[in-house]
Parts: sequence; C-alpha cells; structure tokens
Amino acid sequence: MADAGKSIADQIKEQGEIVRKLKAEKAGIDKITEEVSKLLALKAQQGSDKDEKSSGKFVLKTAKGTRDFNPRQMVIRQQAFDKIIACFKRHGAETLDTPVFELKEVLTGKYGEDSKLIYDLADQGGEILSLRYDLTVPFARFLAMNKVGSIKRYQLGKVYRRDNPAMTKGRFREFFQCDFDIAGPTDPMIPDVECVRVVTEILDSLDLSEHIVKINHRKILDGLFEACGVPDTQFRAICSSVDKLDKSPWEEVRKEMTDEKGLAPEKADQIGQYVLRSGQDDLVEQLLADPKLSLSKSAIEGLEALKLFFRYAELYGVKKRVKFDMSLARGLDYYTGIIYEAVLTSILYIFLYIKRQSYFISIFLLDQNPEEGVGSIAGGGRYDNLVALFDPKAKAVPCVGVSIGIERILAILENREANLKLRTVETQVYVAAAQKNLLEERMKICAELWDKEIKTEMSYKANPKLLGQLQTCEEQGIPWAIIIGQSELEKGVVKLRHVPSRQEEEIERSKLTDVLKHKLNASIV
Amino acid sequence: MADAGKSIADQIKEQGEIVRKLKAEKAGIDKITEEVSKLLALKAQQGSDKDEKSSGKFVLKTAKGTRDFNPRQMVIRQQAFDKIIACFKRHGAETLDTPVFELKEVLTGKYGEDSKLIYDLADQGGEILSLRYDLTVPFARFLAMNKVGSIKRYQLGKVYRRDNPAMTKGRFREFFQCDFDIAGPTDPMIPDVECVRVVTEILDSLDLSEHIVKINHRKILDGLFEACGVPDTQFRAICSSVDKLDKSPWEEVRKEMTDEKGLAPEKADQIGQYVLRSGQDDLVEQLLADPKLSLSKSAIEGLEALKLFFRYAELYGVKKRVKFDMSLARGLDYYTGIIYEAVLTSILYIFLYIKRQSYFISIFLLDQNPEEGVGSIAGGGRYDNLVALFDPKAKAVPCVGVSIGIERILAILENREANLKLRTVETQVYVAAAQKNLLEERMKICAELWDKEIKTEMSYKANPKLLGQLQTCEEQGIPWAIIIGQSELEKGVVKLRHVPSRQEEEIERSKLTDVLKHKLNASIV
Repeated sequence: MADAGKSIADQIKEQGEIVRKLKAEKAGIDKITEEVSKLLALKAQQGSDKDEKSSGKFVLKTAKGTRDFNPRQMVIRQQAFDKIIACFKRHGAETLDTPVFELKEVLTGKYGEDSKLIYDLADQGGEILSLRYDLTVPFARFLAMNKVGSIKRYQLGKVYRRDNPAMTKGRFREFFQCDFDIAGPTDPMIPDVECVRVVTEILDSLDLSEHIVKINHRKILDGLFEACGVPDTQFRAICSSVDKLDKSPWEEVRKEMTDEKGLAPEKADQIGQYVLRSGQDDLVEQLLADPKLSLSKSAIEGLEALKLFFRYAELYGVKKRVKFDMSLARGLDYYTGIIYEAVLTSILYIFLYIKRQSYFISIFLLDQNPEEGVGSIAGGGRYDNLVALFDPKAKAVPCVGVSIGIERILAILENREANLKLRTVETQVYVAAAQKNLLEERMKICAELWDKEIKTEMSYKANPKLLGQLQTCEEQGIPWAIIIGQSELEKGVVKLRHVPSRQEEEIERSKLTDVLKHKLNASIV
Repeated sequence: MADAGKSIADQIKEQGEIVRKLKAEKAGIDKITEEVSKLLALKAQQGSDKDEKSSGKFVLKTAKGTRDFNPRQMVIRQQAFDKIIACFKRHGAETLDTPVFELKEVLTGKYGEDSKLIYDLADQGGEILSLRYDLTVPFARFLAMNKVGSIKRYQLGKVYRRDNPAMTKGRFREFFQCDFDIAGPTDPMIPDVECVRVVTEILDSLDLSEHIVKINHRKILDGLFEACGVPDTQFRAICSSVDKLDKSPWEEVRKEMTDEKGLAPEKADQIGQYVLRSGQDDLVEQLLADPKLSLSKSAIEGLEALKLFFRYAELYGVKKRVKFDMSLARGLDYYTGIIYEAVLTSILYIFLYIKRQSYFISIFLLDQNPEEGVGSIAGGGRYDNLVALFDPKAKAVPCVGVSIGIERILAILENREANLKLRTVETQVYVAAAQKNLLEERMKICAELWDKEIKTEMSYKANPKLLGQLQTCEEQGIPWAIIIGQSELEKGVVKLRHVPSRQEEEIERSKLTDVLKHKLNASIV
C-alpha cells in the first residue's frame, strides 16, 4: 500500500539495499532469507509485468514455512487423522468447522506476546481480517455467536503463525491442529482428566507410547508469584519467562527476570526454588504443606484441583503418564485452570530422524534434553473466561480442551514407514488390451465396472502395448487385470489375470462384473 | 498501511463520511454493507484499544461471505465428501494437498478479469502472498516444482474469492472445491470425457440426477471469432462478453461488445448467429459444413475434437447428459481445449429452496431461466500450457480436469434432509448411575470400554439424576445404557438397557465389555 506509488524497479533497488545492509551487518540467516525472498518476489513481479507468460518462473516454491503433501504423505496423514478422529468419536465428540480467517478483532488480545505472529490479510477495502492462529478462539466465538452452552466438539484444521519457521524442527507457518474440547458446566476436573486420556489414547494408537503429559495449573503459578512477592502487574511477564525453562537453563531465565523484566533478584531466587520441581501427587502434598505457598488462596485452590486430578487420572488409567511440572506455563492468555503439554520421551525417535534427515541431528541434540523428549506434540488447558469475551452479556461457558499438533508425529510416521510400500491409489481392476483397436471395447468395460462401483482404470493411450499395461498393474499393486483380445471377444470371453500370482482364467464377457464383484468381496483389497 | 499514521478516531471519522456519502448516493446495498462493516470493525478496534477485555463484543460475526458449519451441517458435508471421494478413487486418483496461500506471483496472470477477486495477505515483512483462488493453479505449480509428468489426482479444499454478491445466491468468499484432474500425455479426448463421466457419477450418487453438462471448446470459440473478423487482440474481451450469455440476454451482451468493447455491429451480429446455438453431435456436423466456420483451421480442430468427444461420451454412457453450448466461454485464462460446466436442471430444487429459505425465491426466479437450471455446480476444462508457465524450461504437461463446487449441493442436501433425524455423535454406550457416589465406578467402566474401543460417554456431573441420564440417551440416539447401582455392584452385576426398546437385563460386571462387544457387532449402530 505504502509502496503503491513507487515503480517496481525502485522497490527492487531499495530492497536490494536492505539485503546488502543485512549481509554487511551479518544479520541472522532467517532475516536475510526473508528479505532475499522479498527481493526475488519483486523481481518476479517485474518479470511478469514485462512478460506475462514468464510470470512465476523466478521463484518456484511454496510460501516460506509451508509445504505440499504428496500422495504418499497424504496416505500417512489420512491414516493418522482416521485414528485421531476415531478417538474423538469414541469420547462422544461431534465436529464443526469455522472459516480460515476471522475479523481481526476476534483474535485481538487473546494470545499475549504471540499476537505478533498473527497473519493479517491486506486491506483491500472491506473488513479487517486475520488468518486463524488456533482453533480455540474461533470455537469460543462460535459458542458465543450460536449461544451454545454445552458441547463436546472436535475439529481438525490448519492454523497460521508467522513464526520463524524451522521446518527442520517441525515448526511450520501453516500446520494442522486436531482439537478436542469439552464446553459447558461440569463438576470439577472430570472433563479435564478426560482430555489427558484422549491424548494418551491417540498417541498410543499411533504407536507413540513413549510419551508423558506435563501438567500445571494457572492458579498454582499465580499463587506462586504472589507468594514470592511478584507484583500483580508482572504476573504475565514473569509467567512467559518461566515458560522458557523447557528450552533454556534456569540461569538464563533468571537473568531475563531480573535484567529485562526488573524483578528483584531475591524474588527470582524464590521462584527458582519452586519452578524447577516436578513430580506427581506426592509433590502436590508437599506443596500443600509448604509454609509459603499455603498462605496463598490461589495456590491452595490449584493444588487441591491437581490432587483431584491425580485421583481421577488413576481411575482413567493415565496416572503413570502424567508429570506435575511447575515450570510449565504456556504463553496464551486465555488459560484459567489446568494446563497440559504432551511430549515424546523416547530417544529412539532422535535416531529415526538422524537416519533419514541428517540435519535433524544437531537440532535435537543441541536443543533438547533427551530425557525431556523431542518436543511438544500436544497442548491445552482450561479456559473458562474466553467465551464470555465474545458474549454481549459476558455469559461464561467453562471450557477445557487439548490440541494435537501432528507435524512432528507425521515426520516420525513418515520415517517409520519410509521402507514400506504404500499404495496411494485404490484401483482394483485394470482393463488392458492385447492388441490394437480395442479402445472402444475397453471404454465400454470401464463404464460397466464403474456402474458397479468397481475401482477401475485403463491406459489413456488408444493402442497401448500389453507389456506396459501389465507393468502398470504390478507397479501400482492393482490386484486384477482384464485382458481383452479380438478373438476372445468374438468367442464372448475375456481373460482375467490375478496380478500377484500371474494366474489367468477365461470368463464369460456377459458375467464379467458379477465374477469380479464376487472375487473382490472374497479378497481383501 | 496507508492509514498507519492516522489515529483510529480519525479513521472512524473518515469511514463514517464514506458511509454517509454512499447512503446519500443510494449506492448498492452490498457496497454500503461492506463499508459499514469496515466502520464497525474500526469502532471495535477503538474499543479494544481502550479496554482489551471488551474486544470482540462489537461485531459478533464471521467474516463477510464466510460461515461456520455446525455439527449437523458437518454430517451432511461429510456424507457428500465421502461419495465424491469414492468416485475419485473409483477412477484411480490419488490425492495431494497444497498450502492455503501461495506466492502472489504464482497466481498472477492466470485468471483474466477475475484476478481482482484474489485475496492478498498484508505485507508484514517477508514474501508477498495471496490466498489460493482455485486448486488448479497450485496443482500446476506442484507438478512443475516436483517435475511430475503424469498423475491422476483429486483434491478437496477451500478456495477464496473476494466476490461481491452474497450468500443468498449460494456464492461465498470461502468455499470448497472438489477437484479431479488428469495430467500427462494421452491420446485425444480419452481423459476429457472421463472428467464428464466423473461429474455425472458424483451428481447421480448425490441423487442430483437432473443435470446436464454443457461443453464447448476454446478452439471453436477462437475459430468463431476469427471467422467473424474479431481482431486477435480482442478475443479475450469478446470471449468474456460471450460468457455472460448464461445470465444476460443477447441484446445486452451485443451492446457490451459494440458499445464498451468497440466491436463493429455487423461482426457482433455474425457472432450472435453462432453463440446462441446449442445441440449435440448434430450441431457439430452442421458447423463442420458451415461455409464460414470451415475456413478456420482452429474451428475445424475444435469441432473434430468434439466429434470424438461425443463418440466417447456414448461409450461411457454419458452422452445424454451433454449439451454442446456455443455460448459457454468460462472466464479463466488458462483453458486451451474443451471446457465444461455442469448445471442442475430440475425446477424441483427451486421449490425446495423456497420452502425453507424464502429469500431464495426472488433470486432464482429473477436470475435464472428455469429451463437452464439453478446455476453452475461444476466446471473445468483442458489447460495444456499452465504447467509450462511454472517450469524453468517451459516443459508442458497437458492437463484436463473438473471442479465440483459443493455449496449449492449442500444447500439442496440440507433442505432435503431438514426433517430427518441425523445423529451428530456416534456414541454407542452411556454409563449411568442410579444413585449418588458412583462417579468413580462410572469412570472405571468408561476407561474399560474406551480400552476396548467402544464409543462411550457419561455425565460430567458427580451425582447426576437417573432420569436425566436416560433422557440424554434417548435424545442423542445412544443405543445402550449401562446402569450401575450400589447393591448390583455388590452382587457383581450391572444393568444393561437397550434404549430404543427400554428392555433391561442384568449382566455380570466382569463380562461387561465382552457382552457389549458382542451386542454391538450384532446390531448395526
């Protein structure tokens, strides 16, 4: 918009200078890459202005931080989705869908420091829009808009974050979230623990059983900050420092609290005595007896909630998966109660990554503490006040939910299945010709089989070679081939070939579809 | 961007003036609505700046031209998708996925006059991006990028168009396309006719058998313009006028050609002698013998292609669905051969619309010629040069494909099923308590059933009333309820209730999951 008056050539010149300056300054590689691709985009635009036919030739790529899924990846993705959806349905959830963009104001003020990562649409005259950042805020907007007071819903959809992509770290700008949320009044902690059960069921069904679910409670964090003398106004800022403990050592986090956020060193040290602790209900009991924490009403409430949580987790058979981790904070503004984060714990996956994508080595070994797992693959929590923000009468609908991020899971599954032969098409029958001039007969047979809902293909050549047709069947794993020839047709028969065994038999042309239906029902194709 | 320096208050003032001016001018309602919502968005932004907590309260809506799908609509949508995907798989297609946005240059120069409808993302520092306008151009980009020379692929995804008119016409700004494309070298017209077969199979499977597929050929249109003396440089412009014949009478289209586009009246009249004609292979034969058209090499090529098309269409059993319509032009730049458009023809659907959504009456009766159907629900064609635009060596991959738009189809299905009871959850068993203090026992039973992959729910209240629990089962159509009571548990039994018949039996607690598994396998749930 601001550049509307400038020529492309001028813009290219300016952009070129920006890039040169960044390189001279030895700026971060991400920043340089970003500005370079902007430059290339401008050059491409110039090219397309000059010669429309050449447009697009300059940068043949997907947008930064995004990727295509090829047919093989789609098969793996769909298998994972099927398992995830099966679990959501097992827990009685129904599904809904919301648009990929929302009025910007819907997203405003919901994501704390992460708001800067929201993608905005250009102002082309009309509403001010942004791409959705998660599925939770649109869900809350849906509940308020439709006055839904109680629902269990799942939703699979893409969300968008202008994060500095590290696709090698499994961090994308466009990625899927698979959400499960329980909205409506309930007795305490019953749905909260079901969300953890849902996560573990899904990860188990994907054979990712080496995982734990870290939990914490916003009221415990608030109580802790209160007990350590952090001023109310600094809760959020200190909370977001604590959240960095999964990636940075305590010394660095402490430094950020004192130097950047101006917290008194002795207060930071007091926080440090708590946030490095983790355990199970034993830790809950210790903290309930802690002389400092037990003075905070908020902390006691949070701890009592977790006590109940562990009781229920045992009944739901998931207690062994749960770790109460006092450093878990999660950046989003809207959480009010329990918060979760699931991480994979097996070091095995690190080696799987190494095997196929060698650049993963350094990242995981540098970034991750192996005992702590290879990173978060699910997160969530309770957000009792979010719906009220959208309701004209500020009517609250208590909600709790969890979101499974599948990008890392898919990377693991793709590696695991790298050597498996996966069919990307489901074709059951291939209609082949043994001689020339049989195209019309092949077309008639295809139409008959399609009429009977048999998955059928044939060559798009008018006169294909038989060998090539049979090769296609073998390569594609198509189990049955019908081979037609002039003399057989005159006799009223066709040849049916079982591709894996290469056995052939003659069958009557008029009984073709019946015979095939029978064979396809008998075999598992 | 241009407004970055202005205060919100100033922007609101300016926007208010725009709205007042439009109202004074009696501008179109769409335009006014758009500017008003922009004003409301600004006011909301002002509100959220003042008080973060109140953000979102001003305009509780989805973005213009978009909508949510509620659980009931999702069930209907999923049933339609399942049928569509089954057909695509029946024809041997595999699937892939591309990001929702592309580099803007990927889309530039592909959509002719419609390019103005592309949604751009804001320039937030980085690449220049746009939301995808269809699935075809990203598919071509995928083929070039991955050097795929031959593939049959389907893709279901949302696309985005800043089209003005409204949802009452079934025209959305965010809507689904279900695409099927055959890429790679083939003998003439074999895949082209399969695309029509795919469309009719899908519409038949959705019980929308009252449809026709209009076809035309770019080479016939080009030959026609040539034969009528239209200068080369005006082909596109005249083509886009012809395309309006499905909505406007010839007189208006002629006026546009002569007055707006400067075509000589006698040339327009010559065009008019052709473009109002429609038929089948009989019309192809007439035109092949036409003294004027037969002088054009391009026209002859196109007509010969359609002759072959009709021959194959007969073999594929779809000839009766096809109408050769010389006014079919389609606006997109990238078509090079056959073009298609499927329309529903039954007037019945108009009354279905009327019944439930009365505002549809005027639109269909005003806008549509009933004999011509209630509007386009699928379109496509051959685009042999699109992939080459993306390939660094301009390597061409011939492609033909079709795109099913499901918004109108869904409206029809939703109306048709308006009085049907549709289950939106699939829960098989509800675990109920007859007395207080049985929460933990209910939780244990739920965990056991989930372990056995039985779809199970229970109340989220600690001590729910039995009547309420049974009512939930009946309302939700849950077929089985387990009812536990203290005395039964002590005896080692639970009650199993068949909800539809209200019959109850006692079964051993220890055999519960086995008995249920057996009953669920026996019944169709």
